[in-house]
Amino acid sequence: MEGLDAASIVPLYKQLKNLILKDIKEGRYKPNQKIPTEKDFSELYQISRMTVRKALEQLVEEEVLAKKQGKGTFVQEPKIVEDLDNANSFTNLCKRNGKVPGGRTLRFMLAEPSDRDVKELKLEPGEQVIHVQRLRTADNVPVMLENLYFPGHLKNILTENLNDTSLYQILQDKYGLRDEDFIMEIEMSECNNYEASLLEIKSGSPLILVRELIYDQYDHPLHRTKSLLRGDKIKYISSRLNKTKS
Amino acid sequence: MEGLDAASIVPLYKQLKNLILKDIKEGRYKPNQKIPTEKDFSELYQISRMTVRKALEQLVEEEVLAKKQGKGTFVQEPKIVEDLDNANSFTNLCKRNGKVPGGRTLRFMLAEPSDRDVKELKLEPGEQVIHVQRLRTADNVPVMLENLYFPGHLKNILTENLNDTSLYQILQDKYGLRDEDFIMEIEMSECNNYEASLLEIKSGSPLILVRELIYDQYDHPLHRTKSLLRGDKIKYISSRLNKTKS
Repeated sequence: MEGLDAASIVPLYKQLKNLILKDIKEGRYKPNQKIPTEKDFSELYQISRMTVRKALEQLVEEEVLAKKQGKGTFVQEPKIVEDLDNANSFTNLCKRNGKVPGGRTLRFMLAEPSDRDVKELKLEPGEQVIHVQRLRTADNVPVMLENLYFPGHLKNILTENLNDTSLYQILQDKYGLRDEDFIMEIEMSECNNYEASLLEIKSGSPLILVRELIYDQYDHPLHRTKSLLRGDKIKYISSRLNKTKS
Repeated sequence: MEGLDAASIVPLYKQLKNLILKDIKEGRYKPNQKIPTEKDFSELYQISRMTVRKALEQLVEEEVLAKKQGKGTFVQEPKIVEDLDNANSFTNLCKRNGKVPGGRTLRFMLAEPSDRDVKELKLEPGEQVIHVQRLRTADNVPVMLENLYFPGHLKNILTENLNDTSLYQILQDKYGLRDEDFIMEIEMSECNNYEASLLEIKSGSPLILVRELIYDQYDHPLHRTKSLLRGDKIKYISSRLNKTKS
């Protein structure tokens, strides 16, 4: 076993950090695997628990490890990163993150609109809504349950091939989708039994709930979405650098 | 008791929705209060459970009610809305949401930097970090635990008065804060015991974790933040409307 060198100028906590990082990199600790406790490390390397705690805390802060209350410390799989400023299709998201996108369409049908549909999509009296529900996977792991609602008068959408890549492209090509016009909400939610079974997590698990209202080039509502994302799998980033102040 | 009118042209589910909305508006159901079950409503108004379900589902979709797995359906207090495109100070956030901001400073001191501090803040060898930790409240409810880390060479910050409003203003006036330059991450996290006790929620409860790296006008890192927000209290919005495509 590789040990720590108390005589080194590299602090002990940093040596331990490096050892753990190496063990993860070389696959001795695998993603989602539980690592030894503070006490285990302290006994194993004959160092104080304070030193171990400092190493583990920094690795948690750097999102290499994750603490789960009452369960221990685990190797954290890097989350899929969605760029809020360039978000468009799930396929592109997966590609940018080196994952293979997949999924299946669960619903693709005309349905009675909810009051939210009527209001946000500005439906005419009696107009139905086109509901598309898709389960999206990254490397075969379900990460998002996506719901799209289109105004019923866009009924040609029902004749489209809902292949992963194509919907976004179709909306651009045929339905006047303009990327930059939207209203988005991001919040936390709890999943119900149906969502839990599809996303392969426990009922009541926390989810990221994203709602969008997307406009076409004439500023008409094109569709609204309600996406439920696994919070343990996806995170959002946004950045503004070197722009002139408005 | 007000009843439902089966002869009306207004569908029964909509009549029930309106009754529930009225009961919330007039304070008969209070925020966070549990409302009757599907079965209760069905017996009370002599309507089918399908009709009740439709009404409740739509109110959940409209975020008037919230379902909690295994616990029932509750009146949802509107969340505080943070606009990602205009986020700056907590004080302004509260004001925009009609809440009274408050809080207390828990830490305000020089500290040993973590490796993350060294890397993100580009610290010199041996340079410390200034750690500011504040618990923020809205209408006396704790909603955010905020950590700010400044490079140690900005030690004048330690002499500033950390009144809620002033820090943001001070950073603008004296430290070259430029609003638009930042990198931000939003993800889900679980709170530990310390965070739970401060935020008055259960240990392990889901939180929104927001990290920011803020630059000054010379593109130097000014500070980094790690904020933990109660997901049951805050949501984010972002919108882009009527802008020219870049």
